[in-house]
Amino acid sequence: MPTLGELATTLELELRGDADFTIQRLAPLSAATAFDLSFVSEKKHLGKLSETLAGAVILHPDWAGRWDGNALLSDAPYVSYARATRVFDNHPQRRGGIHERAVIDEGAQLGRNVTIDAGACIEADVVLGDRVWIGAGAYIGHGTRIGADSVIKPNAVICHAVTIGERCIIHPNATIGADGFGFAPSAEGWVKIEQLASVTIGNDVEIGSNSAVDRGALEDTVVEDGAIIDNLVQIAHGVKVGSRTAIASQAGISGSTHIGARCIIAGQVGMAGHLTIADDVHIGGQGRVAGSVTEPGHYSSGTPIQPIRAWLRSASRFTQLDQMARRIAELEKAAGLDQKEDDKA
Amino acid sequence: MPTLGELATTLELELRGDADFTIQRLAPLSAATAFDLSFVSEKKHLGKLSETLAGAVILHPDWAGRWDGNALLSDAPYVSYARATRVFDNHPQRRGGIHERAVIDEGAQLGRNVTIDAGACIEADVVLGDRVWIGAGAYIGHGTRIGADSVIKPNAVICHAVTIGERCIIHPNATIGADGFGFAPSAEGWVKIEQLASVTIGNDVEIGSNSAVDRGALEDTVVEDGAIIDNLVQIAHGVKVGSRTAIASQAGISGSTHIGARCIIAGQVGMAGHLTIADDVHIGGQGRVAGSVTEPGHYSSGTPIQPIRAWLRSASRFTQLDQMARRIAELEKAAGLDQKEDDKA
Amino acid sequence: MPTLGELATTLELELRGDADFTIQRLAPLSAATAFDLSFVSEKKHLGKLSETLAGAVILHPDWAGRWDGNALLSDAPYVSYARATRVFDNHPQRRGGIHERAVIDEGAQLGRNVTIDAGACIEADVVLGDRVWIGAGAYIGHGTRIGADSVIKPNAVICHAVTIGERCIIHPNATIGADGFGFAPSAEGWVKIEQLASVTIGNDVEIGSNSAVDRGALEDTVVEDGAIIDNLVQIAHGVKVGSRTAIASQAGISGSTHIGARCIIAGQVGMAGHLTIADDVHIGGQGRVAGSVTEPGHYSSGTPIQPIRAWLRSASRFTQLDQMARRIAELEKAAGLDQKEDDKA
Repeated sequence: MPTLGELATTLELELRGDADFTIQRLAPLSAATAFDLSFVSEKKHLGKLSETLAGAVILHPDWAGRWDGNALLSDAPYVSYARATRVFDNHPQRRGGIHERAVIDEGAQLGRNVTIDAGACIEADVVLGDRVWIGAGAYIGHGTRIGADSVIKPNAVICHAVTIGERCIIHPNATIGADGFGFAPSAEGWVKIEQLASVTIGNDVEIGSNSAVDRGALEDTVVEDGAIIDNLVQIAHGVKVGSRTAIASQAGISGSTHIGARCIIAGQVGMAGHLTIADDVHIGGQGRVAGSVTEPGHYSSGTPIQPIRAWLRSASRFTQLDQMARRIAELEKAAGLDQKEDDKA
Repeated sequence: MPTLGELATTLELELRGDADFTIQRLAPLSAATAFDLSFVSEKKHLGKLSETLAGAVILHPDWAGRWDGNALLSDAPYVSYARATRVFDNHPQRRGGIHERAVIDEGAQLGRNVTIDAGACIEADVVLGDRVWIGAGAYIGHGTRIGADSVIKPNAVICHAVTIGERCIIHPNATIGADGFGFAPSAEGWVKIEQLASVTIGNDVEIGSNSAVDRGALEDTVVEDGAIIDNLVQIAHGVKVGSRTAIASQAGISGSTHIGARCIIAGQVGMAGHLTIADDVHIGGQGRVAGSVTEPGHYSSGTPIQPIRAWLRSASRFTQLDQMARRIAELEKAAGLDQKEDDKA
Repeated sequence: MPTLGELATTLELELRGDADFTIQRLAPLSAATAFDLSFVSEKKHLGKLSETLAGAVILHPDWAGRWDGNALLSDAPYVSYARATRVFDNHPQRRGGIHERAVIDEGAQLGRNVTIDAGACIEADVVLGDRVWIGAGAYIGHGTRIGADSVIKPNAVICHAVTIGERCIIHPNATIGADGFGFAPSAEGWVKIEQLASVTIGNDVEIGSNSAVDRGALEDTVVEDGAIIDNLVQIAHGVKVGSRTAIASQAGISGSTHIGARCIIAGQVGMAGHLTIADDVHIGGQGRVAGSVTEPGHYSSGTPIQPIRAWLRSASRFTQLDQMARRIAELEKAAGLDQKEDDKA
C-alpha cells in the first residue's frame, strides 16, 4: 500500500497534510473509511465532503478550502483518480510464455515476452507484437496482426486478416472481423456477398464484452486511435469510428456510416447506414439517427416513461399528430390567427 | 414416463380421473394429443379447453367444471406446470469428474462431485462448491468463487475475483466481471479507470446467453438472490439488481443504477446511470428511463408502429410539438377559453 | 486473378470491351482503380460513372449508354456483384480432417470430409453431414444434427438436440439452443420452466455473431430456409422466423411470435411476444411492435433526433398530448368547427 506522499510523487500532484498516511484503498466519498483515499470529480459533489470519513481526498485546488484533511490537489481530479486506480490495480498480470495447451500454428510470428493462455488458438501467418497477451480460449485468425502490449481477453474471436494496433484491449466474447451482413436480394432468395475486406483498429482502442465489429465488404471497417467501445455494441461493415469517439453499450452503427472524432454515442443509440456524423457530436440514449449530422452538439430523441395509462393515451395521440396540427391550423384560420410559416419555426 | 397419479404425488396436487394414465409429454392445449398433459395458466385461456385433445390438464379447482377429463387441480396451475417440466426434463446431466482436456490450476479448490468439461480453464485460487458444473470451454478467472450446484455453461467467461452463489445458471457466451466502461476525459484522450471492485451474484440467479455483467470500479456490481436476467442484457459497473427482479432480453442498465426487488424490466429497456428504481416497478418494452422511479407501478414510453407514410408525418410533427402547444394556448386566449394551469393537468 | 472474359463466363453475363482485361480486385466506384472491377447497383448511382477510374463495371443493359469502358451487362447487377465476390473470396478454407486438439465423443457420427478445428468439442450422438466445418473452440451439444456444408464458426455454442440444415453459417460467439427465458412467478420467487423443446433451423440460414436463438419450452423455435439473421439478435423461445426473412442487428423477437416469409426487420426493432407478423412486412429501425401486423407493407415508429433543448420540449409535450387533443376539440366546439369523428380519421 502506498503512502500519500508516494502517490503524490507518482501522480505529480501537490500534497497537503500527512505524507506518511498509508492508503488502504480507493473509495467513493460515501463509502470511504479513515484508511481510504477518495476524490471529488465535480463541483456538484463538494457537499459530500462534510460527511465523508475519507482519510484523504483528491480535489481541485479551488476547492481546497472546503476540506481540512489530507489532500492531493489536482487541476483534473477525475483524471488523477483514474491514474491512481493503476497504482491499486488488482487484475491478474500476464504470466509470460506459451501455455502447453495453447495451439499455435508454426507459421505464426510471436514477439518478445508474448503470453498465450490455455486453449487459445493462433492460426497461420498471425503476427503478435511484443508483450501481447492472448487469453484462454481466444481465437486469432489467419494473417491477423496485433500490435505490442495489446490484450485479447478469454474466448474473444478475432477473425482472419484483421489489424489491431498497440495497447488495445478486446474484452471477453467480443467478435472482431466476422462477415458483414451483406446479401443481394434475388428471385431465388438472398445471395451472400462475400466480405472481402477486413477490420483495421488503431492504437489504444478498447472494445467491450460481446461486442461485434464486422469486416468490410470491399473497404475495411475502421476504428481509429483512442476510440472506446462498450459491451454488446454492433459496428457493421464499412463503418468508420473516429479517433477518441466513445460508444456506449448496445449502440448499433449500420453499414458504411462514418462517425467523426471525439463523439459520444450513448447506450442503445441506433444509426442508419451510409450516414456521416460530424466531429464532437453527442447523441443521447436510445437516439434514433436516421440522417447525417453535420453540426457538433448534443442531440436526442425518444419519449419519457409515463405511468402506463397516461402513456397509452400519449402514444395513441402520437398517431394523430398530423391531424391535430391541421386542426390547429384550421382553428387559427377561423380565428384570424394564422401566421406566416416563417413565424412558426 | 410417469403416470398421472405419480405426477400428482410429486407435485402434491389433487387428481381427478384416471391415476394410471401414462403421460407421454407436456404440450400446450393447441398441440396436445390424447397422450399428453396440458395446462390452463390463466382464466382467459379456458375457452381452448373445448377444442383441446389433451389426455389430461392442470387447472385451477375453480375452473374444474369446464373440463370433464383427467385433471390435476392446482391453486397455481402455471407454477405446477413449471414444476412438471422438471419431471420431463431432457437436458444432458452432469457426468461428474474432470475431463482430461480441462485445464485446472493447482491452486484451485474443488468441492465434491464437481464436473469440469473439456477445454474449460480454471485459474488459481478459484473455489468451486459441491456439484458445480463448468461447461466445455468456459473460463473461470483467478480467485473466483462459485457456490454449490451452480452451472456455468459452455464458453461463458467469469473473470477474476467474482462471487457467484448457489444454484445459479450462467448461460453460454455470457461474460461476468469484465471491466466496467470507465474512462476519464483528458486532453490526451480517454484515461482508463481500472475497475478495482468485482461482481457479487446471489443464490438462484440465472443470467442469459451473451449477456454482460461488468465489474465495479470501486464498489461491486450486485445481482441479488432470485433475480433472473435474459439474453444480451447489459448490466454496467456498480449496478444493483434487487432480489427476484426480472430483466428481459437486450435491456441495458447504466452504471451505478440501483433497481429494487421484484421489478420487471421488459426487453430493450434502457436505463440511464445513477438512478434509483423502487421495488415492484414494471417498465414496458423499449422504455426509456432517464430519471429515478420512486413509486411502484407500470410505466412505458415510446410510440407505436404506423404505416411508414403516416409515421413520417407523426414523427415530423413531434418536432413541432412545443410550437403546437403554444399555438393552442394562443387560440384559447383568443377564444376566452384559457384555463388555469391546474385544470389542465 | 480472372480476366473479364473468364468472369463473364462464370457469371453468365454479356461482355462488352476487352475480354483479356485482368481484374485485380472488386472495388466500389469511388475507390476503384484502372485495375479494378466495379458495379452500379441502382440507377441513382449512375452519376458516379463519370468520375470513377474503374477498369470495368457491372451494370444494367439499359444503362450501357452511360459508360464507354469495359462492362459486364446484367439484368441484376447487384446480384452479379454478389456472385463475383465468390470468385475473389479470400476467406481461409476448411483444411479437412480432425485437429488433434479437438474433443469428439465416440458416439458422434461424422460425415465425409468433415473439418473439426482445435479445441472444438463434439458431444455424444451428434450427427455432422458431409463437409461440415466446426471452428476452433465451438461446442456442439448432445444429439445435435448439422446438415452438409454448414459452418459453425469459432467459439459458437450449439446446445443439445438442435437441428441445423445444410449450407448454414453460424458466426462466432453465437448461441443456439440455450434455455428460453421461462419462469412462473410464485410466492417463493421465480420457478424455472425447463425448456423441453429445441431449435430447428432450415437450409441456407445465416446467424450473426453473438446472436442468441433460444430453445422452445414445449414447441421448437424455428428459423426457416433462407432466413438471414445479423449480429446480437435475440430470437426467444417458440419464435418462428419465416423463409427468406432478414433480421438486422440487435433486433429482438419475444417468445412465441411468428414472423412470416420475406419480411425485413431493421436494426433494434423490438417485438412483443405471441404476435403474428404477415409475409412481406418491413419494420423500420428501432420499431416498437406491440401488436400483430396483418397487412404487408412498410411500418415504422419512433421519433427523430433533435438538438437536445428542442427535444426536451418535444418530449415534455408528448406527455401532454392527450390534453392537447382535448383542448383542440374544445376550441373546435367553441368555434363551431367540431367535426364528426369519421371526418378526422
